[in-house]
Amino acid sequence: MNPVDIIVKKRDGHELSHDEINFFIQGLTHGAIPDYQVAAWAMAVYFRGMTDRETTDLTLAMAASGEQLDLHDALPPGAIIVDKHSSGGVGDKTTLAVGPIAAACGLPVGKMSGRGLSFTGGTIDKLESIPGWSPDLSEAQFRHQLREIGLVVAAQTADLAPADKTLYPLRDVTGTVPSLPLIASSIMSKKLAAGADAIVLDVKCGRGAFMENLEAALALSRLMVAIGRLSGRSTTALITQMEQPLGRAVGNAMETQEAIRTLQGGGPADFQALVEIVAGEMLRIAGAADDEHTARPQVRAAIESGAAFEKFRAFVAAQGGDVRTVDDPTLLPSAPVRLDVKAGVDGYVHAIDARAIGLTVVALGGGRQRKGEPIDMRVGVMVNAKVGDHVAAGDALCTVHAGDEQAANHVVDRLHAAYQLGHYPVAPLPILLDRVGAEDFEP
Amino acid sequence: MNPVDIIVKKRDGHELSHDEINFFIQGLTHGAIPDYQVAAWAMAVYFRGMTDRETTDLTLAMAASGEQLDLHDALPPGAIIVDKHSSGGVGDKTTLAVGPIAAACGLPVGKMSGRGLSFTGGTIDKLESIPGWSPDLSEAQFRHQLREIGLVVAAQTADLAPADKTLYPLRDVTGTVPSLPLIASSIMSKKLAAGADAIVLDVKCGRGAFMENLEAALALSRLMVAIGRLSGRSTTALITQMEQPLGRAVGNAMETQEAIRTLQGGGPADFQALVEIVAGEMLRIAGAADDEHTARPQVRAAIESGAAFEKFRAFVAAQGGDVRTVDDPTLLPSAPVRLDVKAGVDGYVHAIDARAIGLTVVALGGGRQRKGEPIDMRVGVMVNAKVGDHVAAGDALCTVHAGDEQAANHVVDRLHAAYQLGHYPVAPLPILLDRVGAEDFEP
Repeated sequence: MNPVDIIVKKRDGHELSHDEINFFIQGLTHGAIPDYQVAAWAMAVYFRGMTDRETTDLTLAMAASGEQLDLHDALPPGAIIVDKHSSGGVGDKTTLAVGPIAAACGLPVGKMSGRGLSFTGGTIDKLESIPGWSPDLSEAQFRHQLREIGLVVAAQTADLAPADKTLYPLRDVTGTVPSLPLIASSIMSKKLAAGADAIVLDVKCGRGAFMENLEAALALSRLMVAIGRLSGRSTTALITQMEQPLGRAVGNAMETQEAIRTLQGGGPADFQALVEIVAGEMLRIAGAADDEHTARPQVRAAIESGAAFEKFRAFVAAQGGDVRTVDDPTLLPSAPVRLDVKAGVDGYVHAIDARAIGLTVVALGGGRQRKGEPIDMRVGVMVNAKVGDHVAAGDALCTVHAGDEQAANHVVDRLHAAYQLGHYPVAPLPILLDRVGAEDFEP
Repeated sequence: MNPVDIIVKKRDGHELSHDEINFFIQGLTHGAIPDYQVAAWAMAVYFRGMTDRETTDLTLAMAASGEQLDLHDALPPGAIIVDKHSSGGVGDKTTLAVGPIAAACGLPVGKMSGRGLSFTGGTIDKLESIPGWSPDLSEAQFRHQLREIGLVVAAQTADLAPADKTLYPLRDVTGTVPSLPLIASSIMSKKLAAGADAIVLDVKCGRGAFMENLEAALALSRLMVAIGRLSGRSTTALITQMEQPLGRAVGNAMETQEAIRTLQGGGPADFQALVEIVAGEMLRIAGAADDEHTARPQVRAAIESGAAFEKFRAFVAAQGGDVRTVDDPTLLPSAPVRLDVKAGVDGYVHAIDARAIGLTVVALGGGRQRKGEPIDMRVGVMVNAKVGDHVAAGDALCTVHAGDEQAANHVVDRLHAAYQLGHYPVAPLPILLDRVGAEDFEP
């Protein structure tokens, strides 16, 4: 087989065979196919797209390009490993609450997670705001903790989907990021390599997400569910609101604190609702509940009984974290300066630009512009007024948590501009926009 | 400016600005833009195309990427330098006859030429069948000979259009060869950098050419004439027949011999006709004739008076060639073995697969499969029967000229298969299929 023939075949709109896709992915993984051929192929895929079958073959080839974990030997026979993935949004601390809830309901949750980049934060960054907590586990430690506690969040150590490590940065510099088959295979290949039996995808939609409109989010969701189906993994995609920040806290320690409050039953309404929906879907897809109506009471019971909170506490302790900060989240790192951003007029909040809020937190030092940069755990923005809320002139729309006054003053105008107020009332934004599941496909 | 933004802009179907194209071409020439970004851009250009204005900017940027010759100081004031370019075909020895005719009519002809690759031969290879003749001239020698004799054919020494030297091989391995703006700019940038004031393009069309159908040949012609027009060079494209080999001789020394016979007035009808059309157009476009009707008698006179032949003789002598082989072309290298490929039945020649003939000559050792390979000047195929000719069973359709009997026998079946005979008569193929000139554009 010849890489040029494969590029030309895709360029001319034909469907690539299983063998052609495997040959190409193996070639790019091992350097036998040079970057410039991968780039031309990726651009041809951008223009011509891929069938569900091709995208599934691509995903499986990428998953097979490196290690493929099987965590079942760490678990009781018949256990179903459910993974949850978020496409990334502003204030998205969902894993911190959903993981302990699912684990408290008896589902093993073992996650390889990433760090944040650009305007969305990473789960590991948020957890690292807990003094002592570490994501660096050996595979043996990972398996031990998964068996004993049922909840692990670790930095990726295994060589999962190395093809993606070649393809992803190349897409970034060749204008081929927005290709749906390339996005879907990048996400799903890592989930499959990490050994998930079932996957709940939280596809964020809105201006604080990579998918800015429902049409794009639906197309990506449909494709990822199709990949799951064709590769034998139960998969559901939940398309959820990301026009405004999720919950109230945006910033690492602030979000961890909000997640802990939510496990104690005291989270913001929209975040609480999302957590219940995602955790419920995890239970349903793993067969621990028949449908969402029976799943929801289990989720609520896990919160109300304190079981989810206890699970989180045990998880933090197991990974070296100081549990005093879990018992009293005000002990988490906090910023020395707080500055309110005030409404200039009376009115209703019509919109909050989630991306602008996320970028402001990056500017405050709470996120990365480049890989490997250190981040300030303490800083962030507390969103006091959300879409639909009424504010009076002088009320705090949001509060900046900054390292010093200069930094705080520097971002006030930007945050002010992120808020759109109006005179007429508007309804709060719904949290769940749509869902795509196996039932949406022909049997 | 950022290369990714330029790729994305083209990917999304927008017109690139003059500055963006210059930035990109300078970047790829000097290595500031890596191959993988060039590859992605080329694929985006393949899908989205370019406007005439963009393609002209691309051509001029590529021409400006290296040396740009100005040969006027070697010539009388007001001299117009006409270049002639063939897109390549089987048996295409046109430059060998047209160059001396134009020079004999007073047009200075100074050509930088290339060597052959694949099934089409190169002008320099053909001339090197003349013992002693060399294409290696210094720039001073080139200018001196252009002034003194008016005819030079040299290997490219100047660093003309180095951007094309990066782009051309990259297109070959990324499936982006068939993009019309990339083809047109590759050809025209070298002509502009070599200092042509006016250009006659001989665009070959048919299965012995890169453009296999008239539609594609017309599109390429229209684009190259548009580039000429927008960059201020008079340009005509002649679309000419390449279904069957041009003339009768295919093979280096055999083609040189046929060109010499044509300069003496004794060439095959189709080749003689093409030579008169191309040379006439060169005179017209340079202003040495008002139209083709006044150009044609000048061309015929140059042949009939022996002036064109004398010009070729002087040109060969000036570049070190043995003029005895010009005076008596049977002294040119010739193959030891000749084998006729005979008609099995009576009939008319309906088609001759030019590409198959060209590839057979490569197989005999008369062409290159890879750059830099040595070639056997002596070998080739003499096409005795052309489309429209009647043959009787046992007549020679063509004659193999080979290095040994084994090589000759090896290709007989292939040559036989290249001929399609039929019972009903067919007309000879026309040589000129279409033309595109400045007059085909709105003023």
